[in-house]
Amino acid sequence: MKHLNIIESNGFNDLSLSKFLVHDSPYFKILNFNFKAGQQLPIHSHDIEGQLSILVLEGEGEFLGADGATLPAKTGDILIADIAEPHGIRGATDMRVVVTIAPPI
Amino acid sequence: MKHLNIIESNGFNDLSLSKFLVHDSPYFKILNFNFKAGQQLPIHSHDIEGQLSILVLEGEGEFLGADGATLPAKTGDILIADIAEPHGIRGATDMRVVVTIAPPI
Repeated sequence: MKHLNIIESNGFNDLSLSKFLVHDSPYFKILNFNFKAGQQLPIHSHDIEGQLSILVLEGEGEFLGADGATLPAKTGDILIADIAEPHGIRGATDMRVVVTIAPPI
Repeated sequence: MKHLNIIESNGFNDLSLSKFLVHDSPYFKILNFNFKAGQQLPIHSHDIEGQLSILVLEGEGEFLGADGATLPAKTGDILIADIAEPHGIRGATDMRVVVTIAPPI
């Protein structure tokens, strides 16, 4: 059993998004990304089986999809995608998100 | 690709915790539970392989473990446990949590 606070465990970085590995196991990988306004996880995909969720814990921004598509990303918003689908995220304010990938990559 | 807001999708219920199925796939199941102060998901376990995470999106309460153990649960707190380990959660204020189970049960 593991217990931690994601907000206390990871801050913000002026130079690039701040990445924190919350958990990695044979079942899933959990990551926290913190974005300052304007920072982003560029759109990408991996040609493998599985799905991921991106949950906004705090702040606002946009989820990024294929062909320039964007979807609002604010506290409580969740995006679920195949790992093989293009996905990304960009902060409009300071923003904390939690990404869960199953199976882990 | 699925996109929704968990806060807008599920409210609170005076009589019992309010459960909302966010997503179910062969890879993971994602659930949202909302607790009014004093409501709980009683401690339980399932004798199967896999792990789960419980992330507090809003509010405060306690994670419940074996033998009466408790751990603080506030915004940004995450508990990760084997599905076979006893786990539960109780709200001290109105509280929203997101549970991810992999593989899904």
